[in-house]
Amino acid sequence: MALAVAESERVRGSTSPNPPVGCVVLDAHGHAVGFGGTQPAGGPHAEVMALKEAGVKAQGGTAVVTLEPCAHYGRTGPCTEALLEAGIKHVVHAVSDPNPRAAGGAERLRKAGVTVESGLLADEVSKGPLRAWLHYARTGRPHVTWKYAASLDGRIAAQDGTSQWISSETSRKEVHDLRAKLDAIIVGTGTVRSDDPALTARDADGIPLPRQPLPVVVGRSDLPVGAKLQHTALHLRTHDPDEVLTALVAEGVVDVLLEGGPTVAGAFLRAGRIDRVLAYVAPALLGAGPAAVLDAGVSTITDAVRLTVEDVTMSGPDLRISAVPQT
Amino acid sequence: MALAVAESERVRGSTSPNPPVGCVVLDAHGHAVGFGGTQPAGGPHAEVMALKEAGVKAQGGTAVVTLEPCAHYGRTGPCTEALLEAGIKHVVHAVSDPNPRAAGGAERLRKAGVTVESGLLADEVSKGPLRAWLHYARTGRPHVTWKYAASLDGRIAAQDGTSQWISSETSRKEVHDLRAKLDAIIVGTGTVRSDDPALTARDADGIPLPRQPLPVVVGRSDLPVGAKLQHTALHLRTHDPDEVLTALVAEGVVDVLLEGGPTVAGAFLRAGRIDRVLAYVAPALLGAGPAAVLDAGVSTITDAVRLTVEDVTMSGPDLRISAVPQT
Ligand SMILES: NC(=O)c1ccc[n+]([C@@H]2O[C@H](COP(=O)([O-])OP(=O)(O)OC[C@H]3O[C@@H](n4cnc5c(N)ncnc54)[C@H](OP(=O)(O)O)[C@@H]3O)[C@@H](O)[C@H]2O)c1
Ligand SMILES: NC(=O)c1ccc[n+]([C@@H]2O[C@H](COP(=O)([O-])OP(=O)(O)OC[C@H]3O[C@@H](n4cnc5c(N)ncnc54)[C@H](OP(=O)(O)O)[C@@H]3O)[C@@H](O)[C@H]2O)c1
Repeated sequence: MALAVAESERVRGSTSPNPPVGCVVLDAHGHAVGFGGTQPAGGPHAEVMALKEAGVKAQGGTAVVTLEPCAHYGRTGPCTEALLEAGIKHVVHAVSDPNPRAAGGAERLRKAGVTVESGLLADEVSKGPLRAWLHYARTGRPHVTWKYAASLDGRIAAQDGTSQWISSETSRKEVHDLRAKLDAIIVGTGTVRSDDPALTARDADGIPLPRQPLPVVVGRSDLPVGAKLQHTALHLRTHDPDEVLTALVAEGVVDVLLEGGPTVAGAFLRAGRIDRVLAYVAPALLGAGPAAVLDAGVSTITDAVRLTVEDVTMSGPDLRISAVPQT
Repeated sequence: MALAVAESERVRGSTSPNPPVGCVVLDAHGHAVGFGGTQPAGGPHAEVMALKEAGVKAQGGTAVVTLEPCAHYGRTGPCTEALLEAGIKHVVHAVSDPNPRAAGGAERLRKAGVTVESGLLADEVSKGPLRAWLHYARTGRPHVTWKYAASLDGRIAAQDGTSQWISSETSRKEVHDLRAKLDAIIVGTGTVRSDDPALTARDADGIPLPRQPLPVVVGRSDLPVGAKLQHTALHLRTHDPDEVLTALVAEGVVDVLLEGGPTVAGAFLRAGRIDRVLAYVAPALLGAGPAAVLDAGVSTITDAVRLTVEDVTMSGPDLRISAVPQT
């Protein structure tokens, strides 16, 4: 299953609105003979890719897959039928499909005499490569990660507005790698005006990575003439986070990175539309300058938006804190 | 040496302005026969305490001590002479004495035929129980730990000024234990006006712990009538951190906890008088309210006060971040 998770992770960011599933096919002796990850929307699913590589060796074998195989006819045929045709006798999957349209895969396989086991590494998969897609399948909304870089005293820029290099080179590289795995990046018009970001995923030399997320700007005002995002971004002239997310669903977006600034972050927070907070905290003090979030709808301490820390790691000299809102 | 460090840690907070030293005496066969920690100022040093317990068993034995034994006549006789008289043949110490008045202990012992080794667990000792005292011995100034509790977005209180329970019960208990190990706690008159703190070290039931730090208030205005600190605190009517520290040295203070608020924290930061930052970061977002530090003398990002993270741990649901300014 660890190999299937790796396949899942490998294709993450390229499959939306389909889930980035990974599959490993074992032959009747338990040897891995086929590996596969979901192809971009409209292309074959992970199981079909892995079966193709396995060929006749799949006969009497096992399919290990991160998500319950689908049983429905979409743009591609159901994976259950492909598994049965290939002579697979055992299926092990991590997570069950929450999507009522696609569910019933395990049921269908069992009826055809295949043994089906579920739950292996389920936690790793549901917090890892399938996290955003599972959220989307359950709620109909893209998963939103709000990412920001701040000093230890919570400033995202200095008094004069300068914010470049608040966080370390290591953290900035991590963010570029993360961008390449997501479907869209949102900023407000304020950030466009002050930082003129390109919102592209680039490598250490500034060369764009092969996968690029959709850049999205939110706000009613026009973008400054000559702004890097002027002709590349989807500009949504609204202040309503739900309108933003609905427009993104129409674009096939499942996994979103909200990169600020504080006004837009506050709007998403008030609307309850932040599913994960990813804070890069630089060990520096500024003593002045804007805070990470402006107006979270909280006026007294007992109303604070409470989170649970999922994970804390060092990213070079910085702290990388991942937290989720308590429900 | 680990046992000597534990002795050192045990007496921490009760020995200033003397160092909280720990000593273990081993007999000629290497068995621990005496333990000792420095007694409150004027009382015997760690070596003397441990030798007393060891009695004649110290003959031909070893003294393991966290700090180089002193060779000078102060309020107590030099430890070197006590060790020689007891027939100690080997001395192992962690840290050498930076104090020119007391130094020369190793030299004196060697001349008398004792083998002396130094450096064992030196890092643990100099970052641990002897940290503040070593700083004081080197600079003549008390060691200042600035401690604050903030939300993930850097607020130390909500919009309406409420700040009670920003951090968890676990963190608050940790702070009370820390207070009992320090010599003095500083706040500004602003914090007295808004929070009316008692600045005592209490246990989980609110009962005062046996050791209490000196409460210090900084600021020119009078304390409100009836404030808890009105008759207990040393009130220093100045805005100059160095005047504060000089006054504290006169009180025998070596290890200081600066508990804010943001104005006083900014003043100490600008003066370069913060030696360690201890941040309790609660996983909560406020979106409004005062920040941890006001005016660090930084106007642009390249002037940020850069720190190095020493340690990050969880304190219940909160993050506990210890960092030191880069020099
Ligand atoms: N360190 C970091 O991680 C980071 C990241 C991003 C930005 N920043 C900093 O953030 C600062 C910019 O802050 P900002 O708050 O102006 O940026 P912002 O949040 O990106 O943009 C604010 C604009 O978003 C629009 N908007 C969208 N939804 C809204 C709503 N519900 N309510 C109100 N307005 C809404 C409004 O534009 P219209 O008037 O056009 O409607 C508003 O003026 C800069 O200093 C930048 O460097 C730092
Ligand atoms: N969460 C936490 O960790 C924490 C801790 C402490 C406080 N707080 C919060 O902090 C807020 C109070 O903030 P604050 O900034 O007023 O408190 P403060 O820093 O404790 O006190 C400010 C006062 O200190 C005096 N002062 C001393 N040195 C100064 C200097 N160099 N420059 C200017 N003034 C100096 C001034 O008083 P004079 O006018 O008398 O001279 C000034 O008004 C409250 O909301 C409180 O809850 C939070």
